[in-house]
Amino acid sequence: MQLARDADISDYLIAPDPGRDGLARAVTGVDHNGVETTIRVVEERPLTIFLNGQEIVTAMTIGDYPEYLALGFLRNQRMLRDGEAITGVDFDEELETVVVRTARATDYEDKLKRKTRTSGCAVGTVFGDMMEGLDSVQLPATPVRTSWLYALAARINRTPSLYLEAGAIHGTVLCQGDRPLVYMEDVGRHNAVDKIAGWMLSERVSPEDKILYTTGRLTSEMVIKTAMMGIPVLASRSGFTAWGVEIAQSVGLTLIGRLRGQRFVCLSGEDRLVRDADPASVAEEPRKSGRKGSA
Amino acid sequence: MQLARDADISDYLIAPDPGRDGLARAVTGVDHNGVETTIRVVEERPLTIFLNGQEIVTAMTIGDYPEYLALGFLRNQRMLRDGEAITGVDFDEELETVVVRTARATDYEDKLKRKTRTSGCAVGTVFGDMMEGLDSVQLPATPVRTSWLYALAARINRTPSLYLEAGAIHGTVLCQGDRPLVYMEDVGRHNAVDKIAGWMLSERVSPEDKILYTTGRLTSEMVIKTAMMGIPVLASRSGFTAWGVEIAQSVGLTLIGRLRGQRFVCLSGEDRLVRDADPASVAEEPRKSGRKGSA
Repeated sequence: MQLARDADISDYLIAPDPGRDGLARAVTGVDHNGVETTIRVVEERPLTIFLNGQEIVTAMTIGDYPEYLALGFLRNQRMLRDGEAITGVDFDEELETVVVRTARATDYEDKLKRKTRTSGCAVGTVFGDMMEGLDSVQLPATPVRTSWLYALAARINRTPSLYLEAGAIHGTVLCQGDRPLVYMEDVGRHNAVDKIAGWMLSERVSPEDKILYTTGRLTSEMVIKTAMMGIPVLASRSGFTAWGVEIAQSVGLTLIGRLRGQRFVCLSGEDRLVRDADPASVAEEPRKSGRKGSA
Repeated sequence: MQLARDADISDYLIAPDPGRDGLARAVTGVDHNGVETTIRVVEERPLTIFLNGQEIVTAMTIGDYPEYLALGFLRNQRMLRDGEAITGVDFDEELETVVVRTARATDYEDKLKRKTRTSGCAVGTVFGDMMEGLDSVQLPATPVRTSWLYALAARINRTPSLYLEAGAIHGTVLCQGDRPLVYMEDVGRHNAVDKIAGWMLSERVSPEDKILYTTGRLTSEMVIKTAMMGIPVLASRSGFTAWGVEIAQSVGLTLIGRLRGQRFVCLSGEDRLVRDADPASVAEEPRKSGRKGSA
């Protein structure tokens, strides 16, 4: 038995739109029995991000929300400053480019020379010093109810998505209390979190009372991005890396991994947890959760 | 029931060594019941790769086989040419650097200006044109027995590894016929494939009769790396991206995904398949395969 899909997504501000044109396509092949089979496969297309006159990076993305991806990427790279005056965000579908324009003249030639190839899913690249600006991060002591974590995991796992439909993709969800607000997906989970960051920047959403949920691993880059975004809690159904845990502990971020059914492990910031739910009352995940391998 | 581990790894030339110091560490946290719990978590450390005098990239890696990682990365970036005279590969553990030296003077300043953030797991970065050199690739029509694919998947899934022990990591395995030869793991699956490429380069191993198996998704970058390595077959338990399939079809690479139990889907190069195994005779994966989420 698979998880029942809950088609009612009215509680989301932005939910996945797996049926949307251009995010996946039907591809025909042959299965293990030699029978012709057609499956839906997610798209993966280049998007080149410019900051004013300078080409910054080409990201491989499913292609939705290019403006949010560009804004969030640049923000998470600290190439857009606090309160930066953004004068334009221009997406050209034909050229597969997004140009972000600022009132301030920018030049990151030196920063672009230092490239770190990180280890998240479709991570990719951090320019300059990965840890830059992290020491100034102050995360609020917002309490997190364990009942919220269980409710969010159950809700997100039942939300119709490209992940459930086509697999080979990651999701990141911005949540508030027990409510998922914005659910972004991408072939790279770091694109998904950057799209969240871009949405938050555009909508001037405050991070203090938010929880970030990711389907991906809790690596150093995911922890750094979450902390830089000012979000005090990062949760995932996947596992940890040692440096991710170390950074979370050093900035006081609550890090919850292996969140499946009634189980989870908290390796940092346990002081925020309010244990208001009895794990025994939480249903285990059914054998076939419907989640396709997307590793 | 979990998959039985098969401790006999004598058939491998290089097998994972999950107990090796420095690849994972025990971290103590609190579980869903509020009980203190200690789990093993994989390491993730920076390794900066130099080609002669030039800093190329910093990769986040578990840290084993730094020389193979550097050689394979540079080779897969086409910064090392066919038959390149390599005069030294120097790893400095304290400085976390590897310097690869060539008889030829090198300068990739221009190439480094073009950065593509790809969408595999811990992909990271491709410099210059991702497709560069792909049109010259000629892959041999080596037959692939489906009995080999089933045997490889079963063998690899039962091989003691950091993946089975700690999760949050990817594996890539170079195989020949039904035998896995070299099984590399890393926080980034692209590091794992680069380590394979580095080993092949060092040992002068021919790719024509090899099969590459990955735990990760079949994205454009994985397909491109496999094709550039001259390996005609890429198989995975995970899913596909559309561009990965397109590239595989254009270069004539056999692409097999969702290889689990008796099931698989072949979306490219089906002509290489020799269906000598009856899928019905292949055991399904047990409910708990012991594979931890590493997405």
